[in-house]
Amino acid sequence: MTVCIIGASMTDFGRRDAWIRELLAEAGSDCLDRAGVSPKAVDHLLVSNMASGEFEGQTGIMNALAHDLGVPPAYAQRIDQTSASGGAGVYAAWQSIASGASEMTLLVGGEKMTHRNTSAATDVIASITHPVEYKHGLTLPSFAGLAARLYLDTYDAPRESLARVAVKNHANGIDNPHAQFRKEITVEEAMESPVVADPLRLYDFCPITDGSAALLFCSEDVAREYADEYVDIAGVAGATDTHVVHERTDPTTMAAVAEGGARAYERSGYGPEDVDVAELHDMFTILEFLQLEGLGFAETGRAWETTENGRTERDGALPVNTSGGLKSKGHPLGASGVAQVYELVEQLLGKAGARQVDAEVGLACNVGGFGNCVTMTIVEPGGRR
Amino acid sequence: MTVCIIGASMTDFGRRDAWIRELLAEAGSDCLDRAGVSPKAVDHLLVSNMASGEFEGQTGIMNALAHDLGVPPAYAQRIDQTSASGGAGVYAAWQSIASGASEMTLLVGGEKMTHRNTSAATDVIASITHPVEYKHGLTLPSFAGLAARLYLDTYDAPRESLARVAVKNHANGIDNPHAQFRKEITVEEAMESPVVADPLRLYDFCPITDGSAALLFCSEDVAREYADEYVDIAGVAGATDTHVVHERTDPTTMAAVAEGGARAYERSGYGPEDVDVAELHDMFTILEFLQLEGLGFAETGRAWETTENGRTERDGALPVNTSGGLKSKGHPLGASGVAQVYELVEQLLGKAGARQVDAEVGLACNVGGFGNCVTMTIVEPGGRR
Repeated sequence: MTVCIIGASMTDFGRRDAWIRELLAEAGSDCLDRAGVSPKAVDHLLVSNMASGEFEGQTGIMNALAHDLGVPPAYAQRIDQTSASGGAGVYAAWQSIASGASEMTLLVGGEKMTHRNTSAATDVIASITHPVEYKHGLTLPSFAGLAARLYLDTYDAPRESLARVAVKNHANGIDNPHAQFRKEITVEEAMESPVVADPLRLYDFCPITDGSAALLFCSEDVAREYADEYVDIAGVAGATDTHVVHERTDPTTMAAVAEGGARAYERSGYGPEDVDVAELHDMFTILEFLQLEGLGFAETGRAWETTENGRTERDGALPVNTSGGLKSKGHPLGASGVAQVYELVEQLLGKAGARQVDAEVGLACNVGGFGNCVTMTIVEPGGRR
Repeated sequence: MTVCIIGASMTDFGRRDAWIRELLAEAGSDCLDRAGVSPKAVDHLLVSNMASGEFEGQTGIMNALAHDLGVPPAYAQRIDQTSASGGAGVYAAWQSIASGASEMTLLVGGEKMTHRNTSAATDVIASITHPVEYKHGLTLPSFAGLAARLYLDTYDAPRESLARVAVKNHANGIDNPHAQFRKEITVEEAMESPVVADPLRLYDFCPITDGSAALLFCSEDVAREYADEYVDIAGVAGATDTHVVHERTDPTTMAAVAEGGARAYERSGYGPEDVDVAELHDMFTILEFLQLEGLGFAETGRAWETTENGRTERDGALPVNTSGGLKSKGHPLGASGVAQVYELVEQLLGKAGARQVDAEVGLACNVGGFGNCVTMTIVEPGGRR
């Protein structure tokens, strides 16, 4: 069965004066409104969220959202795959429709984080890691620093190539009305920003963000009833890597990216050469390199060249992170994977405004932990399968 | 497609000197061993858990478990539906197989709670509720007290009838080697135990528990390769009620129990008259009454009579909570819904030892929050569909 997306929405990302319940309801109700679907038509509600309990002392948010949207007696469930919770939500929504369990599944991803300071938020996120690594101070940013150092040394890549990822994604974010930072930056500014985890500097990291995004899923038959234009899920899959990062043979590759990507490619019938636009998980600039390579968009050790050559810019052969990416759009954990697919839906349906590129096949890669689990979604305009 | 259960396991429930990772790995690896299935055959790993972050400061436990069991690159995801996380896991596992996303899904549910005192644990659980109700002191036990008072008054039911639920479930738990309390209690002891939330007393409440349980799912074709005996999922479904309990028209009925039950009955083709054994969510004794009525096992307001008549005892017409129920077996939140189905598998395959009853159709009802979301699973011996 082909599973379709007939609605998509996202809130403004950034520092929001709203709690998680309000953020989820904002994206969820706007998604239903835009699709012209009544809350009563929703029979499954999925909420992608990593840590509302830890961040806000509020659990049961899927039941709260069901109530706030007016979808009961619809079934509701929360999905957590750390920073890949959104992508895991897309996979779960696909399963709910494809299995026949649901006729109409609303997925809402969100996180409320900025009321905690950066150190406290980083600590919640670091609880993803192996307890032994955590005790030694290995937060996610410090893993990124180590991987970046090894990558630059191994492949003789210039430090500036990482800065170019940030510069490109900031340039894209300027045209995204929902992005947290709509601000151009230069390679020089990035290279002179404060060191966070050597060799990575402030502009190599995504910010702490509040926000939410939503998608509405159904079968092709139902999609035709509601929508003239919609998007098909061509393939979706996920994979895990070692939980202990130091057990990996080569920390400059992410096995779960390669494996999850291979599975999604196989399910879709597409390969990297077919992808026209991609949203990659640039929580740290180095991750955009590792995903470009793991997904077959660049040779191992050459993603820095691909980036410097301009291939991943908006007018390049493979625009990457037209939304601004996590770097400039922001990274509200549970929302990010959903917002990646939102951007692809907007691009495929020609609604991306100043960000619009020419694209028929889109790919989203959502990374949990430091590549501990990765989900991949490939989409195309509806009606082709 | 018929989805089958070819493996089932649970750890000892109670006060365990082990962290959540260890508990999950214990049930997960034992489940694979008992089924004779290699970790490498597992392609989806689901972890039902409400609050490892809040209870233990550890998140990403599905990735940790994947690593500990040796299932990578299998996909992994955590499922949260508060105290119904286990039942939600069964529903998600069903969807993963029925959709074709997975050929072999391992579900492990667990929670580590006893290192926190009862007040702290109750507070984590109370974060499920609506913030306004929470601020007024409405924890789950206090909701139960209010509902019990209203039920006893409305239906002129004797207080002793609630005690009989506890006495029955304790009697069953004596024969469950994994139960937290293997101890007979009398109606008199229950009636004289300390008041917790008037009219409910200590013996009306399940304990705080550590523990884990696991189930292994696949299609019928795959089941036949691995197992001579297995169990089929005849129907599984879920439903939500209002998040704000005081908005319910009648707090002595649980709309999500009735609706979730109706959906599972419809999918299975069975009705309440076909069910031979049931595991109900007796987190509080009053909940066993509300579920007996909501699922059609007793007339509204008459579950207390059904209980006093002995119909739900092990030698009655409809044995309820042969495992000992949450009351005596214990209630490690994310594990409970999985352990309910474990008990049904043992009963249907004739492996329940001293607890064995004559049963061909079993039903599990797992309640999230105070009936905010409920999941229902109906199982039968394999090969009939």
